Amino acid sequence: MKVGVLGIGITKFGEIWEEGLRELLLDAQLRALNDAKMEPKQIDALYTGNMCADSLSGQLHIGAMAAENLNLDKPSIRVEGACASGSLALRQGVHSIASGDADIVMVSGVEKMTDVSTEQVTTALMGAGDEELEGFNGLTFPGLYALLAKAYMHKYPALTRELLAEVSVKNHFHGARNPYAQFQNEINIDTVINATMVADPLTLFDCSPITDGAASIILASEATAKKLGTEVYITGSGLANDSLSLARRKSLTRLDAGHAAAQRAYKQAGITVKDINFAEVHDCFSIAEIYAVEALGFAKEGEAYKLYKDKQTYFDGKNPINTSGGLKACGHPVAATGVKQAVEATMQLRGEAGLRQVKGATTGVTYNVGGSGATACVHVFKKMK
Amino acid sequence: MKVGVLGIGITKFGEIWEEGLRELLLDAQLRALNDAKMEPKQIDALYTGNMCADSLSGQLHIGAMAAENLNLDKPSIRVEGACASGSLALRQGVHSIASGDADIVMVSGVEKMTDVSTEQVTTALMGAGDEELEGFNGLTFPGLYALLAKAYMHKYPALTRELLAEVSVKNHFHGARNPYAQFQNEINIDTVINATMVADPLTLFDCSPITDGAASIILASEATAKKLGTEVYITGSGLANDSLSLARRKSLTRLDAGHAAAQRAYKQAGITVKDINFAEVHDCFSIAEIYAVEALGFAKEGEAYKLYKDKQTYFDGKNPINTSGGLKACGHPVAATGVKQAVEATMQLRGEAGLRQVKGATTGVTYNVGGSGATACVHVFKKMK
Repeated sequence: MKVGVLGIGITKFGEIWEEGLRELLLDAQLRALNDAKMEPKQIDALYTGNMCADSLSGQLHIGAMAAENLNLDKPSIRVEGACASGSLALRQGVHSIASGDADIVMVSGVEKMTDVSTEQVTTALMGAGDEELEGFNGLTFPGLYALLAKAYMHKYPALTRELLAEVSVKNHFHGARNPYAQFQNEINIDTVINATMVADPLTLFDCSPITDGAASIILASEATAKKLGTEVYITGSGLANDSLSLARRKSLTRLDAGHAAAQRAYKQAGITVKDINFAEVHDCFSIAEIYAVEALGFAKEGEAYKLYKDKQTYFDGKNPINTSGGLKACGHPVAATGVKQAVEATMQLRGEAGLRQVKGATTGVTYNVGGSGATACVHVFKKMK
Repeated sequence: MKVGVLGIGITKFGEIWEEGLRELLLDAQLRALNDAKMEPKQIDALYTGNMCADSLSGQLHIGAMAAENLNLDKPSIRVEGACASGSLALRQGVHSIASGDADIVMVSGVEKMTDVSTEQVTTALMGAGDEELEGFNGLTFPGLYALLAKAYMHKYPALTRELLAEVSVKNHFHGARNPYAQFQNEINIDTVINATMVADPLTLFDCSPITDGAASIILASEATAKKLGTEVYITGSGLANDSLSLARRKSLTRLDAGHAAAQRAYKQAGITVKDINFAEVHDCFSIAEIYAVEALGFAKEGEAYKLYKDKQTYFDGKNPINTSGGLKACGHPVAATGVKQAVEATMQLRGEAGLRQVKGATTGVTYNVGGSGATACVHVFKKMK
């Protein structure tokens, strides 16, 4: 399976007060069309990820909005899988081409989160967990990931508080080299450890921010992409699910869905972890990146700390992780994140990642999680001449 | 393109106080598995339509819930396109099989609407329109469809108030013959005309009710379906979009997306309107069925009234429409509706529709609309020996 990436577009991530939900989406869509040097009418179908617009903007039906933005009557569908919504849209775009239904597809992710109170956002995000077993009883996402961090660090004490903080330090280092990142400043371990406690052991700097933003990507069949001289292809898509609630998981110290999704994507792409030059992963909280690194196979279970001790995860290290700055520094407009990861992977493979460029990269993966691990979606990107 | 229907499942539609969102979905899923004589582990992927659970139950991430219900880690995605969410899930299931990604797919639609106030439901449903141009300014869906009714009946006065009421009278007649319908009582024209006015000219009996319910359908590739002796196949899927708001439409007296979706589905299935033995259509309001009948080509624009004058749309008439009772009498758990239409089409083609059976039916279509016409999705069902 090979689907070409014809164009990418991304808005600045952050508190974008001058643009609403529709304008953010349109901005990313037009940038992708411009990058691909295409007209809207060349698009056969659209898939758009969005999580929270119902709660936060009173707007459903984002599929119709995405088509209307380009004055198209083409098939256009919204998909949602919590914070993995963007990569689910990407997967549906890939399937749409593979099924022969469409030759050229636009995939977008959009989220407008800063127009309401932090309390409203925290409540809306809790829709990603199990409302009956978790939300109703007062759990929020910082709390859920703090429980995971406690469980993991109890079983694997080699992941010290300092090494966990390294996740955020490294992601801010990358964010400082990414012009579309929400936070473009470097921090150090003390910044993380001494910040306001959110949910023990996670402080404010272990948590990704609330962000507005959108990203778009234009895909095409292998035949069309080759004709256009496209260099970057998606060669594998893996998706797996698990229980919504932590209470019903087999293990709290590994995300089974993440491991399964990675294996499915690698199998389809015909690669192993050794082939991967970089990964964009889901660090909604610092501990989530630790789970991601193990799910993708960069470290055995309980041994992700080694990558942070040796500083291997910087853009010029052995296993570059989150060169965009990740969710922590680049920002986390939830359903845009999965598409942003694809945009970053494409930039890396094209050699357009500037100060954070991974040298000679030919294979990258994106790893996007919904909820506390109920959905995990992995895509493999490959540069081909 | 041929995708087989292996199994169907549907809950009773109505105010189902003893079942929550998860239980309704599970109920339909288990009925479909039972009908198909299958085990959950035979399912390769799941697509679930849901519109309002975020607003009405605080629950997103319904894809993960659908997989968890069957103890599966298989790919599972929620899709949303307002009241067309169910048929969009069906379409994604069809694509998933056509792309080779899955051989057997479960498609479901679920909505839990009666646990909150009518005001909350009306507000949530308005997410299907344009929040900035319509919702923010106080429009609700009865109002939007009343505007359409006014525009249509002004241009085409041959559609009298009495003939418009015939839509609901006929749908209640069918509902009275459907054991899973919310309302199983017959009504007459006076019932409709003399009922409480909701939005002129639409009275309470021109409006579909608020409903809890779920429906599931199991699909398989043609090869697998043939091996299992399946009789019913989906042979066409058409989807089209238009602006969210009425203000930006080219016409108010026809739904362009409906016409386009029908033509796309017919083309894929290789049929014309003359081949169709029955249709399940989207009568969220009585006037919507008039637009549907014209979009599907059963009547020219402005002439749908003739079918109601001649009583052609009853199950034993020339053009049976909404043998399930439609949204008006069967009920409208919004995202379940598109899948319910597929369940009814399958029952008709199998000859299992009891007192409302269309004799000798071999071809049926489903027509599902999102919002005031921003999304329209049509599927063609065919009986094959």
